[in-house]
Amino acid sequence: MPQTNPVIHMLGRRLRLAAIGGGPGSFIGAMHRQAARLDDRFELVAAALSSDPDKSRAAGADLGLPADRSYGTAYALMEAEAMRADGADVVAIMTPNDSHHPYAMHALKLGFDVICDKPMANTLAQAQEVCAQVAHSQRVYCLTHNYTGYPLVRQAKAMVQAGHLGDIRLVQVEYVQGGRAKPGPSRTAWKDDVSRGGPSLVLGDIGTHAHNLLRFITGLEVEQVAAEVGTIVPTRQTHDYAGVLLRMQGGARGNLWVTQAAAGVENSLRIRVSGSLGTLEWAQESPQILSFKPLGAPAQTYTPNGPGTLPLAARSSRIASGHPEGFHEAFANLYADAAEAIAARRCGLAPDPLALYFPNATDGLLGVQFVTAVLQSSAQQGVWTTV
Amino acid sequence: MPQTNPVIHMLGRRLRLAAIGGGPGSFIGAMHRQAARLDDRFELVAAALSSDPDKSRAAGADLGLPADRSYGTAYALMEAEAMRADGADVVAIMTPNDSHHPYAMHALKLGFDVICDKPMANTLAQAQEVCAQVAHSQRVYCLTHNYTGYPLVRQAKAMVQAGHLGDIRLVQVEYVQGGRAKPGPSRTAWKDDVSRGGPSLVLGDIGTHAHNLLRFITGLEVEQVAAEVGTIVPTRQTHDYAGVLLRMQGGARGNLWVTQAAAGVENSLRIRVSGSLGTLEWAQESPQILSFKPLGAPAQTYTPNGPGTLPLAARSSRIASGHPEGFHEAFANLYADAAEAIAARRCGLAPDPLALYFPNATDGLLGVQFVTAVLQSSAQQGVWTTV
Amino acid sequence: MPQTNPVIHMLGRRLRLAAIGGGPGSFIGAMHRQAARLDDRFELVAAALSSDPDKSRAAGADLGLPADRSYGTAYALMEAEAMRADGADVVAIMTPNDSHHPYAMHALKLGFDVICDKPMANTLAQAQEVCAQVAHSQRVYCLTHNYTGYPLVRQAKAMVQAGHLGDIRLVQVEYVQGGRAKPGPSRTAWKDDVSRGGPSLVLGDIGTHAHNLLRFITGLEVEQVAAEVGTIVPTRQTHDYAGVLLRMQGGARGNLWVTQAAAGVENSLRIRVSGSLGTLEWAQESPQILSFKPLGAPAQTYTPNGPGTLPLAARSSRIASGHPEGFHEAFANLYADAAEAIAARRCGLAPDPLALYFPNATDGLLGVQFVTAVLQSSAQQGVWTTV
Amino acid sequence: MPQTNPVIHMLGRRLRLAAIGGGPGSFIGAMHRQAARLDDRFELVAAALSSDPDKSRAAGADLGLPADRSYGTAYALMEAEAMRADGADVVAIMTPNDSHHPYAMHALKLGFDVICDKPMANTLAQAQEVCAQVAHSQRVYCLTHNYTGYPLVRQAKAMVQAGHLGDIRLVQVEYVQGGRAKPGPSRTAWKDDVSRGGPSLVLGDIGTHAHNLLRFITGLEVEQVAAEVGTIVPTRQTHDYAGVLLRMQGGARGNLWVTQAAAGVENSLRIRVSGSLGTLEWAQESPQILSFKPLGAPAQTYTPNGPGTLPLAARSSRIASGHPEGFHEAFANLYADAAEAIAARRCGLAPDPLALYFPNATDGLLGVQFVTAVLQSSAQQGVWTTV
Repeated sequence: MPQTNPVIHMLGRRLRLAAIGGGPGSFIGAMHRQAARLDDRFELVAAALSSDPDKSRAAGADLGLPADRSYGTAYALMEAEAMRADGADVVAIMTPNDSHHPYAMHALKLGFDVICDKPMANTLAQAQEVCAQVAHSQRVYCLTHNYTGYPLVRQAKAMVQAGHLGDIRLVQVEYVQGGRAKPGPSRTAWKDDVSRGGPSLVLGDIGTHAHNLLRFITGLEVEQVAAEVGTIVPTRQTHDYAGVLLRMQGGARGNLWVTQAAAGVENSLRIRVSGSLGTLEWAQESPQILSFKPLGAPAQTYTPNGPGTLPLAARSSRIASGHPEGFHEAFANLYADAAEAIAARRCGLAPDPLALYFPNATDGLLGVQFVTAVLQSSAQQGVWTTV
Repeated sequence: MPQTNPVIHMLGRRLRLAAIGGGPGSFIGAMHRQAARLDDRFELVAAALSSDPDKSRAAGADLGLPADRSYGTAYALMEAEAMRADGADVVAIMTPNDSHHPYAMHALKLGFDVICDKPMANTLAQAQEVCAQVAHSQRVYCLTHNYTGYPLVRQAKAMVQAGHLGDIRLVQVEYVQGGRAKPGPSRTAWKDDVSRGGPSLVLGDIGTHAHNLLRFITGLEVEQVAAEVGTIVPTRQTHDYAGVLLRMQGGARGNLWVTQAAAGVENSLRIRVSGSLGTLEWAQESPQILSFKPLGAPAQTYTPNGPGTLPLAARSSRIASGHPEGFHEAFANLYADAAEAIAARRCGLAPDPLALYFPNATDGLLGVQFVTAVLQSSAQQGVWTTV
Repeated sequence: MPQTNPVIHMLGRRLRLAAIGGGPGSFIGAMHRQAARLDDRFELVAAALSSDPDKSRAAGADLGLPADRSYGTAYALMEAEAMRADGADVVAIMTPNDSHHPYAMHALKLGFDVICDKPMANTLAQAQEVCAQVAHSQRVYCLTHNYTGYPLVRQAKAMVQAGHLGDIRLVQVEYVQGGRAKPGPSRTAWKDDVSRGGPSLVLGDIGTHAHNLLRFITGLEVEQVAAEVGTIVPTRQTHDYAGVLLRMQGGARGNLWVTQAAAGVENSLRIRVSGSLGTLEWAQESPQILSFKPLGAPAQTYTPNGPGTLPLAARSSRIASGHPEGFHEAFANLYADAAEAIAARRCGLAPDPLALYFPNATDGLLGVQFVTAVLQSSAQQGVWTTV
Repeated sequence: MPQTNPVIHMLGRRLRLAAIGGGPGSFIGAMHRQAARLDDRFELVAAALSSDPDKSRAAGADLGLPADRSYGTAYALMEAEAMRADGADVVAIMTPNDSHHPYAMHALKLGFDVICDKPMANTLAQAQEVCAQVAHSQRVYCLTHNYTGYPLVRQAKAMVQAGHLGDIRLVQVEYVQGGRAKPGPSRTAWKDDVSRGGPSLVLGDIGTHAHNLLRFITGLEVEQVAAEVGTIVPTRQTHDYAGVLLRMQGGARGNLWVTQAAAGVENSLRIRVSGSLGTLEWAQESPQILSFKPLGAPAQTYTPNGPGTLPLAARSSRIASGHPEGFHEAFANLYADAAEAIAARRCGLAPDPLALYFPNATDGLLGVQFVTAVLQSSAQQGVWTTV
């Protein structure tokens, strides 16, 4: 990562960030704020942390925000900040899934750049609308598929791009969690409500991460799926597992398996990509190791900033090799890159091309298209369905 | 493993073994003989190592066999040994796949017990015939799905049986190899000949292993499959990958992925089984570790003969914990158990029930049925197909 | 980690931090600032980043500091900030080793709380002086032995405290790096200058970390050492390895091995602690795993915020289990705890006792005493020497 | 491993083996016999399994031995077998430590080749006597430091020999077990009797293994030691831990740590060897992985028969890469190589030079010299002591 702060360098100040959602009790809210803070490219200036104005102010005070910039609604925040001379530049959305679309649309229309938690939207039509608005507004839209921020995921992508794997042939990706192994409601009530959490909880929560990860590393799109999505834990109403066979662009074949019902498993997002020249393996629970097994030579282990690090990975680490970075740093890489892109846009400069690997609106739309096709195949006896 | 040799204890001598196949250059032939030898329950007394009588005698001499018991054909061996007072008790078949059926049938009809390499047969009809003949002959038939011989695979099965996982819900099994990543013929010519290697090379070679492993550990049968089987390496004629979604007995769901075209991967047979109470994970490349992740308690690591070893696993290790056993010992466990069953049969004794966990004719038939259903689903656009 | 920011809660604002050192090119400077920022308990308000006033101002501007708070010397910074109404509360020292003592002394005398990079001092007399001044001034002094900030290192300590290991008997600690495997000067010139880097580079750089880690986890002091310290890479003038046999308080025995000359190794800080009831193992390169091998039961794997997490570890993680945290978060835990202690001190409140596990002045003094004894034993043919 | 059995090829038959010791309840006895059997180069023809003639005959019968070749004493066996036309060629000694010397001496004098469990002897004088007798008799003497039989240990040695590590600089070896973590007697009574088990149980049992392993891989001798040997478990009379600093031939430095009192640890023999060009790491509990970390390039993982396998390792594996071999196969490699050397000797042929890497009498003597020097240093306050 560059020593000099490119945002301060370009803008002369940090970007002003407004947070929508992420109030008390929100795991992902604290995560977003830490990610925004780590590389000192943002200053949190406003938030809408609760729909109860008093609670929102109290939660804002806990974060060191002044009372007049702790808003009771997302819309109030956006309207007011858009009017202030020192108003927020960027809106970060970390609310339940069904509000991602309306808040992002509103923010874009008011001229904010947007950082939004995934999924982009609960329906295809909404996703298309956001995508069109991003194109129209020429604003930066960053979707926090944070796993693509890990240095070794980026190293994997860079190795594929550099041809180290040859032609991609086979992909396996799994995202297996145990958080919903027990019957009963989610810790977050809206997740169990299909109208808020989306048509398939497991696909929206983690299926889109798995899909995004395999697209990011391989650079290939999924063309067809044969799938089953269902519920394995008794009495549950929302999906908790999905198995998908994949036909990829260029003829590669793949397999995607996601579940939140694997008792005792923590957060096992793993990927294996095989090409004609070798195989890459990475697992999120040991993110500081990337295994490359070349055809006919000993397997190699890549580490962040270790020997063989390619530029895209090098700029994604803050530290010498052997010093693990984790989930926060991966998440922060998206914020840092989005910040660089936003600052460049505001200054009319061309950003470093390597800053543009954060997930964007097109990635979000492709994720929703994937979910749609998977559900369709599952509903039709598993037949191959075009994405 | 018991200190006293149960075969010598029951029979007063070792079992006399005749090997069909496994001549010079055969990897699996040496493996079978080492497995037979390790626990000293067999004595190799005869072999048909080549269809050229001179070559067969020379290869037999290399193994220390007398010239008159090195035969030019499997049938010659079986006919002659069946007539000798000191003739072989058991025939071990390690020939190309298409001959498994006729040799096993002949051996069973002549009264031999049979140890046969997998798959049992290339067609469903043949498999059914062998199965019926085994039942009719009351002989022992052991199919060398050797991975079920690993102590920790048996520990996994025993833990499932003992209820440690609760209700089985989700299964993932993969068998990923790289031996066929490069275009061009197999090292063994018959494998590329569908009439000899069977209708689907990848399914016959390793798909049946993966299927057998998941059945062994879970104790559940596969009821329906949605699958794709195909060829990913350019110019190849035989299958080199398969992806299968699984609907299991009792409602569990699963995913099976096998390929021999993953460049650089060696022999990655891995399984994860999740139940309502926890998840088991095992990988053949590190066979001395079984991970159990119970719901709500720290993950545990089981080792062969380590704390918590259940009886089925305990009898499958020869050594104190911390001293790795490997592929040979797993393979030898099948030979050792089959020997115990055969000796008991010959003496009219009841074998130790724990000796009866080697794969048998029913397992072989179920494997062929699985292959058949997978091919059928793949041919029909991936629709769910009953096994 | 608590949702509410205890510093803002107690003080109504963030602590004001002044950084001494850590200018352009400094790895550890960026690290300190990120650590200070992550949990939003500090605001960087001033810095002395270079002895050239212009360079210091330029570097400060890169960090977003106003020109009048970018100072040309540490002393200028401390004098000026002590006079300002809105002056810094805390001074963080991240300069070459020989200046740790004078800067800390000056800061303490002016009433600042101090966060200081290790080692505390290059000589025993200096360390004793700092220690006395801390006691006298009643200020918080935090020495950044950052490895004790890892959640699972704290879990290990808490498990020892809770008696899970029984009586501690055997300790092994190694800190093996490869950064100095090649002959030639260090990247940082002062490290090769004994008058600046201290009497033993390898002991000051990483030996004190290893010593601190074993004391932290076991709660036991080193009583006697038998040691060799030396230089293994040809032409080098400073120490690059040390081996130390340890006699610990209460009769435990141990072994410490440190080197920076192990070609190809990254940052292998590992510890194993055995007690009468079991053994703990932890390695910095996989910090999200703590292995506990209890006597007579399967080995257990602890993860941050996973099942079995004790309170000291729970407050040291920001995230759900399965989401790795790394070096930054460990470092930030020291800053976060020191901040809590400082805020409590300033408000006359009792801090949470669990906030007081950061390394302090006594830890620093014991580190220097250890180095002194090791060097003495090495100079005397390895005989046992009292610390 | 060669397909053709070199012993049968040279001699026209298997070697005839007589076992001294290893009767009922002996772990190591079964191990020796399985190792001898695996590669079919030996036939067990005689044994002295108990000092009670009836028990010896019964135990022999369990192994399939005729009554007249189950002897009541080692001496009776050796005298009788030396006289038989079909008598044993080789004597394998697997008795308590104090008898290794007299039995080996007697066997050598009668013209037998000898395979002997370690340690070679309990005293330096005895070890020197055996060494001289081996030289005088021109017989093969193989000492079963079995860990050097692992394919990847041999790969490590071959890589060092080939210069992949450059100049050896630093060595760490540990052998940590937990079998004696609890107070109370050993499972084997003679081990607690210094007159039988030798002057230092932990050094004789496992210290010599660690010493042999580091010599084998590095090709360097230990010149000086600074050590402590002692007893950490209360009430125990024999040594259960030792720490040793090492000065090696050529200036390399090292560290050796062994204990049998680490509760919960199984059999952690680990070694790290650093040279000017890179570092090798191997651990017995995962013997199928050898890590090589070259200076300035990604770490590599070697596997048995995987890419990059050197000839010494290739001949030590029986199987394709990805199929783990274990402790038995490593042990069997010593038997297989000794057999090849013995058969060559008997036929007046030159053995394959790669067959001569099994530990021999000189290795045994060096092991006893090492133990002697370590005890001497420990008794003298840890001062450096020449081996």
